[in-house]
Amino acid sequence: MLSVYSDDNRLHDPEQYIARGVLIPARESPERATELLAALRDGGHQVVAPRDFGRATLLGVHAPGYVDFLATAYQRWQALPDPKGPMALAQTYAMRQMKTCPTSFEGQLGFYLSGNSVPIGRESWRSILASANCALEAAEAVREGAAESYALCRPPGHHAYADLAGGYCYLNNTALAAQHLRGRFARVAVLDVDVHHGNGTQGIFWQRGDVFVVNLHADPNHAYPWQIGYAGEVGEGDGAGATLNLPLPIGTGDAAYLEALDHALQALRRFDPDALVVSLGLDAFEDDSSRLMRITTPGFAAIGARIGAVRLPTTIIQEGGYAVDALRRNLGSFLTGFLSTRTH
Amino acid sequence: MLSVYSDDNRLHDPEQYIARGVLIPARESPERATELLAALRDGGHQVVAPRDFGRATLLGVHAPGYVDFLATAYQRWQALPDPKGPMALAQTYAMRQMKTCPTSFEGQLGFYLSGNSVPIGRESWRSILASANCALEAAEAVREGAAESYALCRPPGHHAYADLAGGYCYLNNTALAAQHLRGRFARVAVLDVDVHHGNGTQGIFWQRGDVFVVNLHADPNHAYPWQIGYAGEVGEGDGAGATLNLPLPIGTGDAAYLEALDHALQALRRFDPDALVVSLGLDAFEDDSSRLMRITTPGFAAIGARIGAVRLPTTIIQEGGYAVDALRRNLGSFLTGFLSTRTH
Repeated sequence: MLSVYSDDNRLHDPEQYIARGVLIPARESPERATELLAALRDGGHQVVAPRDFGRATLLGVHAPGYVDFLATAYQRWQALPDPKGPMALAQTYAMRQMKTCPTSFEGQLGFYLSGNSVPIGRESWRSILASANCALEAAEAVREGAAESYALCRPPGHHAYADLAGGYCYLNNTALAAQHLRGRFARVAVLDVDVHHGNGTQGIFWQRGDVFVVNLHADPNHAYPWQIGYAGEVGEGDGAGATLNLPLPIGTGDAAYLEALDHALQALRRFDPDALVVSLGLDAFEDDSSRLMRITTPGFAAIGARIGAVRLPTTIIQEGGYAVDALRRNLGSFLTGFLSTRTH
Repeated sequence: MLSVYSDDNRLHDPEQYIARGVLIPARESPERATELLAALRDGGHQVVAPRDFGRATLLGVHAPGYVDFLATAYQRWQALPDPKGPMALAQTYAMRQMKTCPTSFEGQLGFYLSGNSVPIGRESWRSILASANCALEAAEAVREGAAESYALCRPPGHHAYADLAGGYCYLNNTALAAQHLRGRFARVAVLDVDVHHGNGTQGIFWQRGDVFVVNLHADPNHAYPWQIGYAGEVGEGDGAGATLNLPLPIGTGDAAYLEALDHALQALRRFDPDALVVSLGLDAFEDDSSRLMRITTPGFAAIGARIGAVRLPTTIIQEGGYAVDALRRNLGSFLTGFLSTRTH
């Protein structure tokens, strides 16, 4: 299947994150892209580089001020007095009650970055932009008639809101792909199988009835993003009923996962979409450092097969997955399963 | 004048904070309390220890779940797996769109702590509680008929909301004092002269017409708390018109400050309060590490004199001030000025 990848996806390199008050090695590393690319080569998939879809396309789902902030943050960080770390980080965070975005850089850091896991370094914007363009190029292929496509996005995107970065995510690649597909398809569904709830995607489409967003994920009471992703969240306004959350217990294995997936796909079919975007995290894997679920490598093939069987024009967007040594075989397994139930 | 202090105020000892991605020595240090206490001794003020006003009193302005979180956070932090730092810190922060408080500890960390500047260590809760009780004891004295009182609160409080810690603040000592004074006085005013906007106090009384909150502070576009403290914020509902913000330019000196203070006090008098709470930060000082304003030591006497001349029953609550070597003389200067315009 057509796959999209850019070498720029490897430039963003946080090396270390602050977690629980201490520095730990970055889980969302450039090596992830290397391993995922190897899976594409293994499978004999065509791999192309993305075009640049331009700022206006990003503004289909993101706020202009936020995009400008991301594009210039490192340069503005460099202008701050020392001492400071090698990457831009927020010191304090937009409090729940606040709506006003300051014009000053330090104020914007706290407004646009929601935690310690979205540092911005010298080359980060190039990776962020390349990742978004990979998603858009993959969506473009389906828009132009391809049955399916895959975007090797790094950094991932599903935790990014219209104007808020979080959880390793800056631009929402999945939302950009879904919005791009809307240029041809009237009704688009997003299925998020990353082990973490895709809160940014949900937030972007929260009030829209033309994009159905369904999430299978670890119970947010015990997993990032903690404050969102609960079953009671169903969307608002035009989007009422177009959000579906299926939080699953910590430790969920293949059988229970597939049962929940069947339920998600039934709901998705009832929405009667014309196209599908899959937010493909591989971090529900049993050996992932997230330690949240126990999906096996064959389990990913079974998940892929069920999604493929929906027989919709489909763009697959890479999200998380941190068991670097297993990414190659787990992506391979998913794609093999997915293609096994397609008919062309 | 009656002053309230507890040795417990010195227990909370963060040592280091993460700021701009690197560790820096803590500015909000136990030594601050030592220096402020010396000023009270210098002035011959009576210093008493506070009683414990109990949990129910804290719930006058704080959410029960938040108080329980603060009281148990260190113990629950200790139960998390390593690696972790010596004090409880949030890893990700409650995103602007979120309202749901998780029951899990790691979820609550992000919900209740709004940045890297509110770590919780082994003895933090004892200091937080003692600081709140100092404020309540000082308010109690005025409630019982004293013309004025001072509470040596550490940690400070004015950035703490009903259920959100931030900016070195956990419980809002000023709000607790104002609420306690409401037990006798129908209308209470809060005047916040800390160099940073008292966003927590404003948030707590945002919809109330019985407590007038006026802030003089550095332009929040260039200073913590960044997203709040702008002139357009005036309160809502019953509180519409009972919030007044006077943001001042970075670098404001004595003369311009006193002019703004006169304006604030005119507005305060129009509210016709029966009692006053002063949020006394000393961080507008010219040599403070905040580097936001240029108030001199004699300037603090002039500020105190103007506030004293309002001739209201007054409780003074210590907030920030980080030029440790100058705290003794600056507090002394303020209190001398304040008392110079009182008549008993």
